[in-house]
Amino acid sequence: MNIVGQRARRPDALDKVKGTARYIDDMALAGTLYAGVLRSPHTHARILRLDTARARQMPGILTALTAKDIPGKNIIPLIQPDQPMLAETEVNHIGEGIALVAGEYRVAVEAALAAIEVEYEPLPPVLTLEEAYEQQRIMAHWKIRRGDVKAAFAQAAIVIENSYHTPYQEHAYIEPNGMLAQPDGMGGVTVHGSMQCPFYVQKAVASILGLGLNQVRIIQMVTGGGFGGKEDAPSVPAAMTALLAVKTGRPVKLIFTREDDMTVMSKRHPGWIKYRSAFTQAGELLAVEVLYVLDGGAYATLSPAVLWRGINHAAGPYRCPHAHVDAYAVRTHKAPCGAFRGFGEPQIVFAAESQMDLAAEKLGMDPLEIRLNNALEVNDETITGHRLAGSVGLKEVIRKVVTAADWSAKRQSYAQSCAGSVRRGIGLAACYYGVGLGSLGRFLNPAGANVLVSGDGSVTLAVGTTEIGQGMVTVLAQIAAETLGSPMECVRVLPPDTSQVPDSGPTVASRTTLMSGNAVRAACLEIRGRMKPLLEGKSLPWADQVRLCVENQVHLAAQGWATPPKTTYDPETGQGEVYITYSFSANVVEVEVNADTGEVLVTRIYSGHDVGKVINPTTGEGQIEGGALQGLGYALVEEHAVQNGRIINNQFSTYIIPTAMDTPEIMPIIVEHEYAWGPYGAKGLGETPIIAVAPAVTGAIVQAVGLRLFEIPATPERVWQALRRKEAG
Amino acid sequence: MNIVGQRARRPDALDKVKGTARYIDDMALAGTLYAGVLRSPHTHARILRLDTARARQMPGILTALTAKDIPGKNIIPLIQPDQPMLAETEVNHIGEGIALVAGEYRVAVEAALAAIEVEYEPLPPVLTLEEAYEQQRIMAHWKIRRGDVKAAFAQAAIVIENSYHTPYQEHAYIEPNGMLAQPDGMGGVTVHGSMQCPFYVQKAVASILGLGLNQVRIIQMVTGGGFGGKEDAPSVPAAMTALLAVKTGRPVKLIFTREDDMTVMSKRHPGWIKYRSAFTQAGELLAVEVLYVLDGGAYATLSPAVLWRGINHAAGPYRCPHAHVDAYAVRTHKAPCGAFRGFGEPQIVFAAESQMDLAAEKLGMDPLEIRLNNALEVNDETITGHRLAGSVGLKEVIRKVVTAADWSAKRQSYAQSCAGSVRRGIGLAACYYGVGLGSLGRFLNPAGANVLVSGDGSVTLAVGTTEIGQGMVTVLAQIAAETLGSPMECVRVLPPDTSQVPDSGPTVASRTTLMSGNAVRAACLEIRGRMKPLLEGKSLPWADQVRLCVENQVHLAAQGWATPPKTTYDPETGQGEVYITYSFSANVVEVEVNADTGEVLVTRIYSGHDVGKVINPTTGEGQIEGGALQGLGYALVEEHAVQNGRIINNQFSTYIIPTAMDTPEIMPIIVEHEYAWGPYGAKGLGETPIIAVAPAVTGAIVQAVGLRLFEIPATPERVWQALRRKEAG
Repeated sequence: MNIVGQRARRPDALDKVKGTARYIDDMALAGTLYAGVLRSPHTHARILRLDTARARQMPGILTALTAKDIPGKNIIPLIQPDQPMLAETEVNHIGEGIALVAGEYRVAVEAALAAIEVEYEPLPPVLTLEEAYEQQRIMAHWKIRRGDVKAAFAQAAIVIENSYHTPYQEHAYIEPNGMLAQPDGMGGVTVHGSMQCPFYVQKAVASILGLGLNQVRIIQMVTGGGFGGKEDAPSVPAAMTALLAVKTGRPVKLIFTREDDMTVMSKRHPGWIKYRSAFTQAGELLAVEVLYVLDGGAYATLSPAVLWRGINHAAGPYRCPHAHVDAYAVRTHKAPCGAFRGFGEPQIVFAAESQMDLAAEKLGMDPLEIRLNNALEVNDETITGHRLAGSVGLKEVIRKVVTAADWSAKRQSYAQSCAGSVRRGIGLAACYYGVGLGSLGRFLNPAGANVLVSGDGSVTLAVGTTEIGQGMVTVLAQIAAETLGSPMECVRVLPPDTSQVPDSGPTVASRTTLMSGNAVRAACLEIRGRMKPLLEGKSLPWADQVRLCVENQVHLAAQGWATPPKTTYDPETGQGEVYITYSFSANVVEVEVNADTGEVLVTRIYSGHDVGKVINPTTGEGQIEGGALQGLGYALVEEHAVQNGRIINNQFSTYIIPTAMDTPEIMPIIVEHEYAWGPYGAKGLGETPIIAVAPAVTGAIVQAVGLRLFEIPATPERVWQALRRKEAG
Repeated sequence: MNIVGQRARRPDALDKVKGTARYIDDMALAGTLYAGVLRSPHTHARILRLDTARARQMPGILTALTAKDIPGKNIIPLIQPDQPMLAETEVNHIGEGIALVAGEYRVAVEAALAAIEVEYEPLPPVLTLEEAYEQQRIMAHWKIRRGDVKAAFAQAAIVIENSYHTPYQEHAYIEPNGMLAQPDGMGGVTVHGSMQCPFYVQKAVASILGLGLNQVRIIQMVTGGGFGGKEDAPSVPAAMTALLAVKTGRPVKLIFTREDDMTVMSKRHPGWIKYRSAFTQAGELLAVEVLYVLDGGAYATLSPAVLWRGINHAAGPYRCPHAHVDAYAVRTHKAPCGAFRGFGEPQIVFAAESQMDLAAEKLGMDPLEIRLNNALEVNDETITGHRLAGSVGLKEVIRKVVTAADWSAKRQSYAQSCAGSVRRGIGLAACYYGVGLGSLGRFLNPAGANVLVSGDGSVTLAVGTTEIGQGMVTVLAQIAAETLGSPMECVRVLPPDTSQVPDSGPTVASRTTLMSGNAVRAACLEIRGRMKPLLEGKSLPWADQVRLCVENQVHLAAQGWATPPKTTYDPETGQGEVYITYSFSANVVEVEVNADTGEVLVTRIYSGHDVGKVINPTTGEGQIEGGALQGLGYALVEEHAVQNGRIINNQFSTYIIPTAMDTPEIMPIIVEHEYAWGPYGAKGLGETPIIAVAPAVTGAIVQAVGLRLFEIPATPERVWQALRRKEAG
């Protein structure tokens, strides 16, 4: 292979660096109106009166709308029909929209928002996950019933039982949400914006406006990051903007402030995990008994799906013959939580991997040894009873990571040097990730791609998945060029446009290389197959090959499809071949903990991944570095201060994320156990880098200062307090 | 069939009537610059000096460009590489562009244009077709050498020989040319505009900017008429606008004034036809000997192709065993002539059909009889030696038209009443039209279509051909709905976008229903085929069929292709199966001629057409009515006053076209001899309605006042003068 597997430069890099890339706020149509959203100041209240009459009359104001003005259904269509676009009778979280205004100028819009008259009757809110679970405010419940847990615990040599807590995490994409909608002059509407999943947005806009899907055209602009935060959440601003555009007949733009974005948009679910594990004396995992609770916020959005992925990976990447797991998403009066890189795994993996460390400690084993003892191999079964037929590189990943890190020597040396303020430790954690949507999302699984070779040999790809910084356009261009036999420079990937390509599902779940890659490859294979007879025995440059084919009226465009192999699932037992394949990962983390201040400095991460086949080592390593760093933020610093249901730190000056200065040495290690159905053997790499970072960090902290954290992030305050408590008690 | 063949309402009608349809001048991007073109005041001159320095410095001006600023090739790519986008050393017609300006305001642009310094050295121009032919300024030459013409003339009972002249005709589209170009933020450019052939525009812009085809995205806006005038000609304003956009980094708009549009854009070629025909005593056409000359103007553009179609139909729709035809396009110092509905046929058919009348007169036959004697039937050969295998409805068309018109009775009655000022006459003429591009344009022939069925059952069609008022979107929506089994209301046809669909050739040559129709049908058949197994034995509404298929992951999008059957052509003899099929047409026209004033009033047209199969009788009749009226303009009033190479009547106040008030009763008659390869049997209908109008009109004038015109239009002035000459001599 000449192109796949080689380092290739991102075609979108230069435009982003130069500032010529066009984000949604760079798009300027003449006559565009500003949009504003009136938002609830209450966590929970009844709306007694809502009057926009005065606002409508204000200078520069074109319209002011409430739920009554919605021509279609006032519901954001997703898993459960519970979230209105505009609250009508009751608000359920701070920042929930209740009215919209469009006007000529921003000041006019702000004045009009202030002139809308609202009377609320405050109602008692439920604000914590524990309270919501106690009150059984359940929005989703999944379970695993596998083997004989009772018997397994009875025969166990050791049992480890703990309770874990994980925090909110912000996606902290550099570009806040933004949309620009315009009437298309044909009774429909076109919406440009920042997003991950144009087809979700299309469904929402169509449903709220009461239009056919082919009257709603959604076009993704260059998008400044998503990480799951722009999966379903952009449907709300898109639908709001589209409604204002249709009502005014003018283009309408809505760009969120960072404060609004952090206040109302989705974030990683806070989690609470009660985890009980049974091991044999030899350190074999026998059984787990788990209660996994996520704080879903006010509306279900993607919580049922996030929870489902979490439960499917509840035991980590290990054999686990007996399991009894209950997972719940509960409803609180806070902004909805939703998709976030890792998608329900980072929370439970923090618990599962901490349990592994604790068992090893209790059994006097090395954390590496207990993991190798239990690690999934070909023909093993996952916790969902999925017997793995192939492409299971976990043991190789673990071995390569510990070798690169010089694990055993460091483990020994750090254990011996525990004097002084700054103490060192090394930790290990592993995970796996079911690639793609799995059996729960199987209806969204197929992906299509249109490939068009022009007469000059230039190639245009249109796909339904999006570039959100992860490198999709590079990877797909490489797959196309490799398959067609063209230079990669010939290939251009268009911004997704729902009118142009089949619904290819969302850009999530590490599925893009696999699904769009297979669709692109299928289309290119078809074109190549049509070209082949003419080129037999000839050795021509690409442009001449194309010229010859055009002269002979060979069709040089094709549509490719990818439909994944079948999956299975039994909701009563949680058993089945729930995903088509799995990526595997392990991290070794080295830390320096200042025992006086509680500061934790991560100095190195060795991050290993079995991705099947890496299409582009450079963007692959970029995913690993980015994921590792985002995982460090989760492990060390990121959390929300919530007071009475209000997020206090809703700016980057108060919500702290790691910067370039905080970045340790990251050593990406890629292992390739090819997946037969993957394009050139590829699986996925988007999410494994973030999942098993936190438990490796906390494991390393244990070695450094003997402190086991059952709650993250390991902020200096939390570590310092815990160290003082430990000293005291 | 439930939908094909039924009257359907145009989906685009309401938007056009309400004024919500968006034409290019309705498109408004913030920061758009005005563009201006500095145009030559000379027919022919050397450019001695061209200095934009002062213009560039003027307030509000962003740039002023000349040919030297073109990064690619300064050539509009078409058949011959002779036309620059901006003249560099020599201008060859009045209005030719030599410099471009972009500025913030129109007044600034106009001032800057005036500030550009140019020195010309005037050169002697060649202004008439005859002069150019004498000087052998030949830009294209085609010939037919068939049978033994000499022997045929020797044995002929009668020989008719005459010279004919036909005028310029303006397309008179209601919307002048206009383009809006914008940099795409990825090194490429997007151009929206009014056009017929986005892929021609794409090639021109890419070549002039030196970009790959996949970096140039052309999107057609709602287009206010084309008639051939927006086939290739919009490439020039598109490339100008794109160059300014790339150079300034801003959106740039160029909307032609009517005066500029009429001065520089293409028009129907003036023609001169020397025609000699040989007949037997029984009125059988034995042979023709023809010299056919078209005034191509300064650059070749499409003249070679226009001329080629003309020669291929040189004898009209009749058997013609012996033929010797030479056709030339000649170069003059006037704006280039180009494509116009009928494409080189109306000129020569005016001559050929006049010859038929004259032969009938000489032989004492009825014009109907001589045509039925010679009319092409299945298994007959055309003048190019094409043996017609099927779908030849000419005789049925002629019979239906004369029956509807009550030809024989009227012919007799008008012949007897020739007293008074106002005298009546009835005329007949026929034609045929090779559908599609034929063997000359075979590389442009394939067409593709993307059909996308969304989850709610709504359907999106993307094709590479354009709606230009002719009804394409209606016809394609009907074909899609018929083939899918969906309601027609579900189907939406997108505006063409070169990045979205394969190059499907131009929207010309009555090929759109045939080519895009077949491509749409192929895609729909594929989708229907995938749906079928699931629907076996079920009777569900369309939306439920789709839902069931989506649940079962059936791919509901497909790309369809149409590649026409092979054609042949020998340029030495002009013989071959030059088109894949032919549409046939005949008109009966009734006139009232005022012998005192020369005014010709057409009171009725019976316009018959064998279209294979009519997809939509309503839009089909619309094509017939529009074509007939445009043919009447050609026959009666339209011509350009040219003084020293300058068109004097370049506004609608001076260039007269028929209005609704001038419209006679038009009786459309559709005959269906299905064409096996056509979608549901369809051929084409765009052009036959205009071709054989003028000779039917002049034939009717002969009956009314005994005056045979060898030159059109039959303006009152021309008729009055001819009548006076006739009286005099």
